[in-house]
Amino acid sequence: MLKYDDYKDYINENLTSFFPEIEPYAATIDKAMAYSLKVGGKRLRPVLLLAACDFAGGDIKEALPYACSLEYIHTYSLIHDDLPAMDNDDLRRGQPTNHIVFGEDMAILAGDGLLNTAAETMSRDLSEYYDDPVRMVNHAKAGLAIIESAGVKGMIAGQVADVENQYNEATAELVEFIDANKTGALLTAPVIAGLNIAGADDDMLDNFRSYAKQLGKAFQISDDILDAEGDEKLIGKKVGKDQDAGKCNYVCVHGIDAAKAKLHELTKGAKDALASYGDEASFFIELADKLEIRKA
Amino acid sequence: MLKYDDYKDYINENLTSFFPEIEPYAATIDKAMAYSLKVGGKRLRPVLLLAACDFAGGDIKEALPYACSLEYIHTYSLIHDDLPAMDNDDLRRGQPTNHIVFGEDMAILAGDGLLNTAAETMSRDLSEYYDDPVRMVNHAKAGLAIIESAGVKGMIAGQVADVENQYNEATAELVEFIDANKTGALLTAPVIAGLNIAGADDDMLDNFRSYAKQLGKAFQISDDILDAEGDEKLIGKKVGKDQDAGKCNYVCVHGIDAAKAKLHELTKGAKDALASYGDEASFFIELADKLEIRKA
Repeated sequence: MLKYDDYKDYINENLTSFFPEIEPYAATIDKAMAYSLKVGGKRLRPVLLLAACDFAGGDIKEALPYACSLEYIHTYSLIHDDLPAMDNDDLRRGQPTNHIVFGEDMAILAGDGLLNTAAETMSRDLSEYYDDPVRMVNHAKAGLAIIESAGVKGMIAGQVADVENQYNEATAELVEFIDANKTGALLTAPVIAGLNIAGADDDMLDNFRSYAKQLGKAFQISDDILDAEGDEKLIGKKVGKDQDAGKCNYVCVHGIDAAKAKLHELTKGAKDALASYGDEASFFIELADKLEIRKA
Repeated sequence: MLKYDDYKDYINENLTSFFPEIEPYAATIDKAMAYSLKVGGKRLRPVLLLAACDFAGGDIKEALPYACSLEYIHTYSLIHDDLPAMDNDDLRRGQPTNHIVFGEDMAILAGDGLLNTAAETMSRDLSEYYDDPVRMVNHAKAGLAIIESAGVKGMIAGQVADVENQYNEATAELVEFIDANKTGALLTAPVIAGLNIAGADDDMLDNFRSYAKQLGKAFQISDDILDAEGDEKLIGKKVGKDQDAGKCNYVCVHGIDAAKAKLHELTKGAKDALASYGDEASFFIELADKLEIRKA
């Protein structure tokens, strides 16, 4: 197992390497897609994918196309989410959002382009294994886990419910649905995909699914806590966004103290799910601890 | 081989059958995606896919997920193209466009949802063949052909060049690039995908690729001719759109007479590409003839 920053560097170094070679007439979209990808971020999802593959004895080189595809999907969702017709955000990670730099039309296309490039990258990866049925199936399972998590029974379902979320009518159940889908799905998928590429067995898949689901919920609650009392300069975006948009989140439904208690409980639950691996799983244990106390 | 309308009926009957089962909290996107899909249209792309599979001795049931996925992709591109930040169209096929009915935010998500559902449908289809390596490879090839054609080296590249197309600066080369990508790519892909599912050989793939490329160009030129002198009531959308938007198309670059001559030449070329199959290819010959004289 490598360190978090080593996986992150490996991803950053290869992040646009799966882009198709784009013709000069369409060069703007190459720039627009790369702009939002390179603004940065924790790379949490692709790091989880590589680490899970590595943990299960797989080759992280084989997992790289899936790690990058997942980051393309995460980035497209942010570009579309920031559009004037959606959250209308001018800043993301302290930098102007895609439509501010490239215009709304190109931002819509850049989002579409990133989602398509994700699916295309995973589909092209399979073509490397047409003569290797076992690997091809493992990779196909990884691709299915990722694309399902991003879809209308996953991330997009969460976005839809979030768009329709009205402060006065929000219930604990609705907020749980939004969190599980908008954020949780794309944090569970990398773990499943990484393990699939390594050919992991069902036991390991179950344990890590339990870890990732609780980590995903914890991650969203810590986001809501930061939105309530975080430091704008550290986060790189406005705080109090949900309330300003008339949307209710975990903190608004349950209160800040209950949110912090739940964050701690979920973090503990995530770690417990991997208890049987002892120190071997320390990467994932430390990550859960780090995310619990994050300031950005 | 069936008749055009038989393939079309088969597609229409099963069009939303590959949608994931969407949760009540996200029900709006189910309606929004289905709305634009069901507004109708010729179903040219999925019909071509089923027909190509059928021609090469494949089972059209196996090809159905790919035919529907292609229609999801075509439909998402229309929804996003109609948005206020893009072409700002209120009508499509004589009906209110998606954002008029569901709002801009939901129209963006419905487009995203359809593209993701296309990729997801094809990925899930592969999971049916994990124990059948030959079929799995054939299906994976079909999926790759479709997702590549829709991407930043295909349809999206054409959209980008079209967005940046300025009347005064348009050249014959630019218009050819836009037509080949924005329209052509998604008309070549179904033929390749359909043949791949049937396991067709390279000779047949080459002949049909030549047919589809010329058919695609012809289809776009006939679109430009209809935009110049068609009947709004038959077409179901405004004519003179390109000129109003300050965009130059084939008719504007070459003139209406040259456009009609080119349409005829391309239609003949498409038919010639399949000459070696004689009457067996009559479905595709008649289709080319029908598209040459279409009024809508």
